[in-house]
Amino acid sequence: MAPPLVTLTSDFGLRDYYVGAMKGVVLSLAPSARIVDISHDIGAQDVLEGAFVLHYAAREFPPGTIHCAIVDPGVGSARRALAFASQEQLWVGPDNGLLSFALQDATGPIYAIDSARVGSGRQSATFHGRDLFAPAAAQLANGWSLSDLGNPIADPVYLDAATRQVDADGIDGRIIHVDRFGNLVSNIAHTDIAPFAHAPCIRIGRAQPLHELKKTYTDVAPGQLVALIGSAELVEISVNGGSAARQLGVERGTSIRVEAQHTA
Amino acid sequence: MAPPLVTLTSDFGLRDYYVGAMKGVVLSLAPSARIVDISHDIGAQDVLEGAFVLHYAAREFPPGTIHCAIVDPGVGSARRALAFASQEQLWVGPDNGLLSFALQDATGPIYAIDSARVGSGRQSATFHGRDLFAPAAAQLANGWSLSDLGNPIADPVYLDAATRQVDADGIDGRIIHVDRFGNLVSNIAHTDIAPFAHAPCIRIGRAQPLHELKKTYTDVAPGQLVALIGSAELVEISVNGGSAARQLGVERGTSIRVEAQHTA
Amino acid sequence: MAPPLVTLTSDFGLRDYYVGAMKGVVLSLAPSARIVDISHDIGAQDVLEGAFVLHYAAREFPPGTIHCAIVDPGVGSARRALAFASQEQLWVGPDNGLLSFALQDATGPIYAIDSARVGSGRQSATFHGRDLFAPAAAQLANGWSLSDLGNPIADPVYLDAATRQVDADGIDGRIIHVDRFGNLVSNIAHTDIAPFAHAPCIRIGRAQPLHELKKTYTDVAPGQLVALIGSAELVEISVNGGSAARQLGVERGTSIRVEAQHTA
Repeated sequence: MAPPLVTLTSDFGLRDYYVGAMKGVVLSLAPSARIVDISHDIGAQDVLEGAFVLHYAAREFPPGTIHCAIVDPGVGSARRALAFASQEQLWVGPDNGLLSFALQDATGPIYAIDSARVGSGRQSATFHGRDLFAPAAAQLANGWSLSDLGNPIADPVYLDAATRQVDADGIDGRIIHVDRFGNLVSNIAHTDIAPFAHAPCIRIGRAQPLHELKKTYTDVAPGQLVALIGSAELVEISVNGGSAARQLGVERGTSIRVEAQHTA
Repeated sequence: MAPPLVTLTSDFGLRDYYVGAMKGVVLSLAPSARIVDISHDIGAQDVLEGAFVLHYAAREFPPGTIHCAIVDPGVGSARRALAFASQEQLWVGPDNGLLSFALQDATGPIYAIDSARVGSGRQSATFHGRDLFAPAAAQLANGWSLSDLGNPIADPVYLDAATRQVDADGIDGRIIHVDRFGNLVSNIAHTDIAPFAHAPCIRIGRAQPLHELKKTYTDVAPGQLVALIGSAELVEISVNGGSAARQLGVERGTSIRVEAQHTA
Repeated sequence: MAPPLVTLTSDFGLRDYYVGAMKGVVLSLAPSARIVDISHDIGAQDVLEGAFVLHYAAREFPPGTIHCAIVDPGVGSARRALAFASQEQLWVGPDNGLLSFALQDATGPIYAIDSARVGSGRQSATFHGRDLFAPAAAQLANGWSLSDLGNPIADPVYLDAATRQVDADGIDGRIIHVDRFGNLVSNIAHTDIAPFAHAPCIRIGRAQPLHELKKTYTDVAPGQLVALIGSAELVEISVNGGSAARQLGVERGTSIRVEAQHTA
């Protein structure tokens, strides 16, 4: 059997010792673990971005993978540390919404990690990635049960994702991610707009409304805006060979509306 | 025998879920594969930079390594996906010149990957890294033959590298890479200038001509320009302890000329 | 037994072929080695930052780990290349202070690596990471003794860390690291200030003196400055939910003073 996979996702960046220290802790406690970086360039303290990136990367990993994620503005405060199973994988991270997508499908109890049980023997108030989350992930790699880490809780924190509103004519959503290429990813799903996907009217920022969902970027001329269903199965606004974020001056959080075309 | 190595090179950056998703796909299909990141910070859609970085990194890897590279402005269009053997290694990537260096030495046929055969069961039009290239690389790691992936083609795309011109007195080339330190790497090879390497005259931008190839950066005073043969065996212009790119205001694509010194 | 771990730390960034080439060299020479990236985003040619990041990451790794670090402004000059044992781990890197922390606790001789013995068969003057340090680390992973790499030396280079001055009332230090979040890490240790840690007066830049060491960032209101003992057990100045570096306009090298509070 292949050795256990431990993925790491954080907002620590790669300039500091934080990511390296976490890797060392995992490999010291679980020498055979295989560490895979998902991303350490999540925007600083940006829990929503972390949740989004983790979700769409993690779902590609094999059953049994252990995902350890840290975007943790509340480190050292009373916020809890979670461990649970979901989607045949194991999840470890702060109780601040970062793990919302996986929590929705959790199988079995959600545990609050007890630092005394994980027992790194060192407990800084500012670096739980090293002192709490990495040890917990490593012990899961060693075969510990979730219940070895702490006690069940009933009220984990979810992200407020209620930013999508459906009315008679369409759906109002938001841009929830701007990727490296300046593609604007909304929270409006493929399935949300199925009834009028053949004749949509897509409104965002100062752009002229877009009246078609294309297949890919190159379906329009270079420099032109295009709406499509991206690889996350969400409505996405892009520019062929350019940056939609720059061209439209749009940031994360901007409103987007998809409605049925009106026949005059 | 060591488990198969799969390297990844892309312009996806590390802020998004794209690289993590590719790793998950490889590890789901080929659980024993070892993934090695070459670079994910290739300039967005910069095929030439990707080709350069991949070439000079890949040649250091052991025989049997599988290189999976994606810099793919034409994703979802009719551009083909390639798989082939070269330099005792296997190569997977878009047919847009990214794999030019390896194509030159290909051993055996060049295959166009057939998405139906690779069969990820999911085929987005915007993320072939996840849905086509990663599965193809993973199946090669599982021992598939190249011919299992698709059919041979006769006309792969090469980068236009004809930017080097030789005349009676010397060679005109271009800066093809500016590295993190501001070193300017040209496409003029060590071997190109052998006849006058002992007494060269090197002209670039607004700099005074340089009349010597030094061994290393510290062969000149701090802050001074220096020409040398860099680790890619190409003519390189640098500043000891500084950035030649900044000091000369030079970018990739700038002309450079190396000629024999004239004796007055 | 788990295969040997080789960590890499450098200022090469991830845009170039340098890191990928080093990984290829290690895996070609030592096929079973497991490579772990600590950081490649050390500030260009910033030996002090490299030493700091390497130290606080490396100490978390298991015994037997081989640390290969390159921040090397003097590459190709007469500066030596070092290999030695310290803290039950092995260390390889340039003799410029980068390995200072480990050198202090070295067990046994310090060796100057002899390029003829490491024998990559290629010796550029500008990329010893690929041609000297990676091969040396790989051969240690293969079980070579340190004495196989070269001969002992008596005078390795240490960083000048004498920037901490103790007087009757307190300690003058400096900010030695600014992390991604804008936290200001000083070189004043927890133990240095034990006598007055219960009632300190902490002076930095234009800030009002801080009169308390808190436990964590969220012990003050959002946007407020806070002093605490960070995860490196050093005095650290932060802003809850913000950047102390930006708020105070402070950079690495800025003076900081911690003294006992005066009772009027």
